[in-house]
Amino acid sequence: METSELLKQVHLFDDIEDELLQHFCKNASTRQIKKGEHICAPDDTARHFYIIKSGWVKLFRNTMDGQEAVLDVLTINSSFGETALFGKGTYSWYAEAVEDTTLLSIPTSVLKQAIEDHNTIAINMISAMASHRQRLDGEIERFMLQNAPQRVGCFLLKLVPNSAWDSDEPCPPISLPYNKSLVATRLGMTPETFSRALNALKKNTKITIKRSVVEIEDISSLSNYACQACSSFFPCKDDCEDE
Amino acid sequence: METSELLKQVHLFDDIEDELLQHFCKNASTRQIKKGEHICAPDDTARHFYIIKSGWVKLFRNTMDGQEAVLDVLTINSSFGETALFGKGTYSWYAEAVEDTTLLSIPTSVLKQAIEDHNTIAINMISAMASHRQRLDGEIERFMLQNAPQRVGCFLLKLVPNSAWDSDEPCPPISLPYNKSLVATRLGMTPETFSRALNALKKNTKITIKRSVVEIEDISSLSNYACQACSSFFPCKDDCEDE
Repeated sequence: METSELLKQVHLFDDIEDELLQHFCKNASTRQIKKGEHICAPDDTARHFYIIKSGWVKLFRNTMDGQEAVLDVLTINSSFGETALFGKGTYSWYAEAVEDTTLLSIPTSVLKQAIEDHNTIAINMISAMASHRQRLDGEIERFMLQNAPQRVGCFLLKLVPNSAWDSDEPCPPISLPYNKSLVATRLGMTPETFSRALNALKKNTKITIKRSVVEIEDISSLSNYACQACSSFFPCKDDCEDE
Repeated sequence: METSELLKQVHLFDDIEDELLQHFCKNASTRQIKKGEHICAPDDTARHFYIIKSGWVKLFRNTMDGQEAVLDVLTINSSFGETALFGKGTYSWYAEAVEDTTLLSIPTSVLKQAIEDHNTIAINMISAMASHRQRLDGEIERFMLQNAPQRVGCFLLKLVPNSAWDSDEPCPPISLPYNKSLVATRLGMTPETFSRALNALKKNTKITIKRSVVEIEDISSLSNYACQACSSFFPCKDDCEDE
């Protein structure tokens, strides 16, 4: 995909003048990151922000006692690092490639200047941050009130393709987007808790899991189970507004 | 406090021209809210945003099965509702006065116009949202990895006055900012879990609690206990950057 086409997929660049878009393209460079390689670390000066061209990236921190807190797992068309510009001007997490990944890297100085000179970019940035905040509010709510099987159920429901939302046809098989141990960490669970949660989910809803493929026989059975401890019902607002 | 003095305490209005500050003052009106009264509800059109002059406000949602998810509890100089402008233009939570509260209410249309016309306001907004995002990331991390007593310990450490951070003097007694049942809900705990967590905390660290007053005999005993399951140690970055 051409750089300009990729940028157009990112909310930050919605409706910006072509000249400004070309300015970002000219300043963008491609970076290949091997699986397991770090892209940046906490307290590094935020010289670049990134847009994922292909692959998967996790943002995480390490706790004092050596656990990993995975704050986000991102893929194609997602950006990260652009808000590190503000405040201390440093990243607050590690970014690591979960698999071989291609990034577009753009200097934050270019973004900063654009925000100062062009109101559209500033407003897009606020709007993107507002929808991210909505997503984080939803995440906090679920951590507060959903039990482990419900959290796993919610994670699976977010993978259901839009075409299956209102359809009478059965939902097509869903592949987990990354490996089970990362899914567990992302949901704040140990592998044992995750495994017990999956079993509880299989017992209480009509799903089956073979390796990394999930079959959801009855979406409403799963959504009734998972969404009861949440303020929005499937298909939930958090997802829709982030698209 | 005069309206302009109050606005100057809010990050959104940092370093803005006096003329623009006066424009916000002219459009601000004072609202008295009784304890327990709702200020707004999910899906209400976001016609105003608010700055707390006195009192406490909780932002919350109700889950399908009737539980309350308290997303934030705010007091003097905090603002809320200003990001609801973006996206669907509606609030995504209830705001309710936890005690008798005085608010400044400013039309979001005034803010929207100011963001479009004045770059300083747009940049302040991005910067305020970036530090809020940092705070939410910290909250998600703690929900993921801290156990209940550690989460309560973390909550108490955030109440320690700056003057006691590096002092050899014992920490002065700390009053809980609002009632225990709201603290429990805010931390995503049932009253029973909260009560057990407090007991575990008393046993493992040198704190005592009488009614709503907490005595922390040894800050490092509490921080060693609570912060081990977190990526930042007391006094933590999340707090500093939000001030």
